[in-house]
Amino acid sequence: MIRVAINGYGTIGKRVADAVAAQPDMEIVGVSKTRPSAEAFVAAKREYPLYIADLGRKEAFDKAGLAVAGSVDDMLAKCDLVVDATPGGVGAKNRAIYERHNIKAIWEGGEKHEVAGFSFNSSCNYEGAIGRQFVRVVSCNTTGLCRIINAIDQNIGVSQVRATMVRRGSDPGGIKKGPVDAVVLNPVTIPSHHGPDVNTVLPDIDIVTLAMIVPTTFMHMHVLQMNLKREADREEILKIIEEHPRLGLVRGSTGITSTAEIKEYASDLLRPRSDLWENCIFEESVAVINGTELFMFQAIHQEADVVAETVDAIRAMAGDVKDGATSIAMTNKAIGLSPL
Amino acid sequence: MIRVAINGYGTIGKRVADAVAAQPDMEIVGVSKTRPSAEAFVAAKREYPLYIADLGRKEAFDKAGLAVAGSVDDMLAKCDLVVDATPGGVGAKNRAIYERHNIKAIWEGGEKHEVAGFSFNSSCNYEGAIGRQFVRVVSCNTTGLCRIINAIDQNIGVSQVRATMVRRGSDPGGIKKGPVDAVVLNPVTIPSHHGPDVNTVLPDIDIVTLAMIVPTTFMHMHVLQMNLKREADREEILKIIEEHPRLGLVRGSTGITSTAEIKEYASDLLRPRSDLWENCIFEESVAVINGTELFMFQAIHQEADVVAETVDAIRAMAGDVKDGATSIAMTNKAIGLSPL
Amino acid sequence: MIRVAINGYGTIGKRVADAVAAQPDMEIVGVSKTRPSAEAFVAAKREYPLYIADLGRKEAFDKAGLAVAGSVDDMLAKCDLVVDATPGGVGAKNRAIYERHNIKAIWEGGEKHEVAGFSFNSSCNYEGAIGRQFVRVVSCNTTGLCRIINAIDQNIGVSQVRATMVRRGSDPGGIKKGPVDAVVLNPVTIPSHHGPDVNTVLPDIDIVTLAMIVPTTFMHMHVLQMNLKREADREEILKIIEEHPRLGLVRGSTGITSTAEIKEYASDLLRPRSDLWENCIFEESVAVINGTELFMFQAIHQEADVVAETVDAIRAMAGDVKDGATSIAMTNKAIGLSPL
Amino acid sequence: MIRVAINGYGTIGKRVADAVAAQPDMEIVGVSKTRPSAEAFVAAKREYPLYIADLGRKEAFDKAGLAVAGSVDDMLAKCDLVVDATPGGVGAKNRAIYERHNIKAIWEGGEKHEVAGFSFNSSCNYEGAIGRQFVRVVSCNTTGLCRIINAIDQNIGVSQVRATMVRRGSDPGGIKKGPVDAVVLNPVTIPSHHGPDVNTVLPDIDIVTLAMIVPTTFMHMHVLQMNLKREADREEILKIIEEHPRLGLVRGSTGITSTAEIKEYASDLLRPRSDLWENCIFEESVAVINGTELFMFQAIHQEADVVAETVDAIRAMAGDVKDGATSIAMTNKAIGLSPL
Repeated sequence: MIRVAINGYGTIGKRVADAVAAQPDMEIVGVSKTRPSAEAFVAAKREYPLYIADLGRKEAFDKAGLAVAGSVDDMLAKCDLVVDATPGGVGAKNRAIYERHNIKAIWEGGEKHEVAGFSFNSSCNYEGAIGRQFVRVVSCNTTGLCRIINAIDQNIGVSQVRATMVRRGSDPGGIKKGPVDAVVLNPVTIPSHHGPDVNTVLPDIDIVTLAMIVPTTFMHMHVLQMNLKREADREEILKIIEEHPRLGLVRGSTGITSTAEIKEYASDLLRPRSDLWENCIFEESVAVINGTELFMFQAIHQEADVVAETVDAIRAMAGDVKDGATSIAMTNKAIGLSPL
Repeated sequence: MIRVAINGYGTIGKRVADAVAAQPDMEIVGVSKTRPSAEAFVAAKREYPLYIADLGRKEAFDKAGLAVAGSVDDMLAKCDLVVDATPGGVGAKNRAIYERHNIKAIWEGGEKHEVAGFSFNSSCNYEGAIGRQFVRVVSCNTTGLCRIINAIDQNIGVSQVRATMVRRGSDPGGIKKGPVDAVVLNPVTIPSHHGPDVNTVLPDIDIVTLAMIVPTTFMHMHVLQMNLKREADREEILKIIEEHPRLGLVRGSTGITSTAEIKEYASDLLRPRSDLWENCIFEESVAVINGTELFMFQAIHQEADVVAETVDAIRAMAGDVKDGATSIAMTNKAIGLSPL
Repeated sequence: MIRVAINGYGTIGKRVADAVAAQPDMEIVGVSKTRPSAEAFVAAKREYPLYIADLGRKEAFDKAGLAVAGSVDDMLAKCDLVVDATPGGVGAKNRAIYERHNIKAIWEGGEKHEVAGFSFNSSCNYEGAIGRQFVRVVSCNTTGLCRIINAIDQNIGVSQVRATMVRRGSDPGGIKKGPVDAVVLNPVTIPSHHGPDVNTVLPDIDIVTLAMIVPTTFMHMHVLQMNLKREADREEILKIIEEHPRLGLVRGSTGITSTAEIKEYASDLLRPRSDLWENCIFEESVAVINGTELFMFQAIHQEADVVAETVDAIRAMAGDVKDGATSIAMTNKAIGLSPL
Repeated sequence: MIRVAINGYGTIGKRVADAVAAQPDMEIVGVSKTRPSAEAFVAAKREYPLYIADLGRKEAFDKAGLAVAGSVDDMLAKCDLVVDATPGGVGAKNRAIYERHNIKAIWEGGEKHEVAGFSFNSSCNYEGAIGRQFVRVVSCNTTGLCRIINAIDQNIGVSQVRATMVRRGSDPGGIKKGPVDAVVLNPVTIPSHHGPDVNTVLPDIDIVTLAMIVPTTFMHMHVLQMNLKREADREEILKIIEEHPRLGLVRGSTGITSTAEIKEYASDLLRPRSDLWENCIFEESVAVINGTELFMFQAIHQEADVVAETVDAIRAMAGDVKDGATSIAMTNKAIGLSPL
């Protein structure tokens, strides 16, 4: 059993905790919070031992009726591997601590490539993570891009990618971030940083990306254009998608044409937290124009797609499972990822 | 076993179907849809027999790979009771059909009191529904108002209620209805119809209501003011709420101050579809001013609170369970409604 | 001519500058910005001398082609009176600077009553501000409440006010603040601070207020309930509103039922910046129930209603115009406030 | 003087009326409404004679205090040219009426190319409209695309255009249309109809477009990619934009990165209704990659950009001004379109 600690039990951390707990070869030794909150109560209901960064705040937890198992240092002493899901920028500062504890560590995409020196995506470079001490799982958008680009590139060949990201303004549970009524260019300059981030996983892809933010809470929407190295038809593309364990097809027969309807569908399917761990590619949008220009829309659940990848990264780093396909299948089965 | 059909497998219907299927004394004999859709696929995954209003449309279902069990008439022939969850206004036209089939029928709050002649709320008038052929479960807002008003009135006495409803613009899965950026008075005149609707269940309450619509998707927010017949303190009120099986307290210790955070919490608790069947009363908002003026905020999940009531209404109409408290406890246990 | 400086040329400051510049007895000697921005270009187009807080940042303004007239200290040396429209909380720190310059100063409602020791509303207490050195113009919500409450109280008598404020999440030009999809109780406790704030202007009113935030950008919506000291009918109330120079009636014949339609109407009327300096009371909502319970909806433009009050406050403090009605009429005429 | 009637005094019609009234060579003979509304009051305040489609409804206008000048037929009898700004699809049915009156007519982009047989954009094909009886001004999105594509094509040469349209869900004054919290693919299939619509004006451009709808009210955002026929640098592109009378540059020095901030800026500039008749191209976004790939973001004000075009179309059809550049300059001057 791989003993896993979650440093930062928030939007990503709480999902990774559940996904790890569902794996036959992993267990959660603890999760951390900085202050009492609804999420701390959730951790308690799940019976995850709760550790806190600053023991000086223990009283606040006591007062809320939340048992504190110890400090984050205590938690790190108990684990083989820590998943750092602290807010963006904080994680880098934790590296020295993890080194001191001599444990493996995974950072999420809010941190830079350099924090770990290796950027991970299960479908692209699982093998490269085997046995590593430090790994960074790329961000939700980069994960969604890597999966589909690599799948098309491996099967057909991709000479050029141009992609637009229409990003959600806030997570569903957020109340502070906007915008309320605006399209915000983020960044206003072209290209955005997403292209170079894809290159940390897929260094040879020629990619230019653009990004904006809109007032929604559920899923980013990607407009994807890929120039193919040879002619292909729509059916060949659909088949590649259907056969990929982390690419989902939103079928035309469902009548779904929006992020809101995908979420409703995931909710109806009783997915935990309505999570969509897979890319949600709209079947009807997939089009090949002029023989070699591939277009599609895909929605990416910002809270969920990296969760499955993180579980695979843990497994790769532990080193017992040597190939990505096996790990992906194990992870998918344990969390309940089956075709939409 | 009470054999239940769901006419209209949409936002409410699909939830009632799952809640009924979870009861030990009920079963689903079928659900109806007018055309293939994501929800039709959900019904298929749940293995609910799928009936369609117009058999002329069967081909469209066949094409989508959806098995059709027959017509709505076929479905009605198989059931003891039908829950009519068709869009508002359609249900009234179905009454003659249900009479012809000589079955019991429940309408939801989109229909007028007159369609059934009896308006239902489990905590207020369960006994009045025993053995009835036709019952209307009042709307989500009216349900939420009746529960708390009656609880306070029975325990302390209420001389006057003034309430403001801040309503969500669209359900989370909707893509057509707005507003996008407006507060819409609906109606612009005062009072709104919600007060008289409460009086269909609680005829003796002096109540004036106002309503507006805002650009959110999850939960209505109620501002409640009740003049008490005697002095009471906050602790007495909180105790009444805690002891009521369909009133939930959003604890101050969770830090939750919004509808978005309630939903996140319900989602974290793995409630199916993040459903909140109970009134969500904000503990910190409960205030008694000048000894007899009671104020509070409560959030009402528009998609869910009537689901639990509908299950109780079915049980009352079937007639085997004679008291509301027993039915409510059975329903709550089966669907997983426990304190937040 | 009263020489006025605007410290903080933002949402409120830029509007006050234009309103002051439009008065026959006032002039703008300068406005201040902390960094180059779209608003700094607007000041330049209006030919308002531009002063900056930190002359060390002059280079950034030069680079943007924006002429800097000097430091904020230079500006204050040139004026009789400064309107402090800096962000909430900053203004209080400026008091010592204004004292040093021995000038009169007005703060906006983001500051506490204590900063000036006198809280102002033209229709309620103009005379009290005559000759004062320091005055605080109450916030947009408090201004809107004071106007209507005082008008009804002076004409009929008000024994009790209960009010709910449904507040906009962000100003229209904002891109950072949310919420995107939530109703946020702010504060979650009852009552809110708005009642005591009304009492800084109208100390004898019995008032309880509640407040929440919703995802809109234009106008707060108030639900007002007033218990009258004597019976009155709707027509009497409407007449009081019609005769008040800062209370506007949104006529039923326009079909307007929302904040969005009010804004569209103000925009069609070519009001500068679509500004609504008056309370926008929905004619059709005005209702008297049980003879003495008055209800109404009013929309308050958060960016604009205090602008007209600030101009009056300047005039009162300068001391030449001795009565509020005269100043209000002068201000209204100069800015173009006529019945909707 | 060209005598112009506006059939349909709504979002576009009311703007065209004001723009026409501002021209030295045109006058408004009347505008039409189907029922009393805020906009009918605006027409009355502007002193535009008000005609109604159905004289049977005159009583409703009388009751609202709105003078009715006659029927739409009466209005058409008084004009040389009618601008049909009725809701999409209605305009086509009016063609026979305009033929019967033997008047010139302009339709807006909600109608198909075939209704007029000629699709117009001032900068692209003004001369082709000279003396025509029927002209269609293309939609806001198509207008925005034609302006920039043609400008680059004429100056540098464009071999291919790929564009994504992120569309606003509702106009600012709307309260019914959504979505509230969703990204809606509209259409879900690729390509969208906008490309072929561009080809009605610019038949030789190779263009593929995609479109989605988001919950905002102000401006569509376009992501533009153009493959150039020869290498060009960013400065050359910026110069082409600066010199075009209907292309506006949102300067980097303003700090503006969103639609909300553009609107605030237009509002601060006291543009009537905050209208942006020009394409709003973000200076900082303009990028040339690999020598011949041009990228940029442009925002298009859906309510305004076609207004200026419609005025030019009127002038071309009347026939006295023979070149587009002269008409564009006249129109811009009269409405106040100068560089941002």
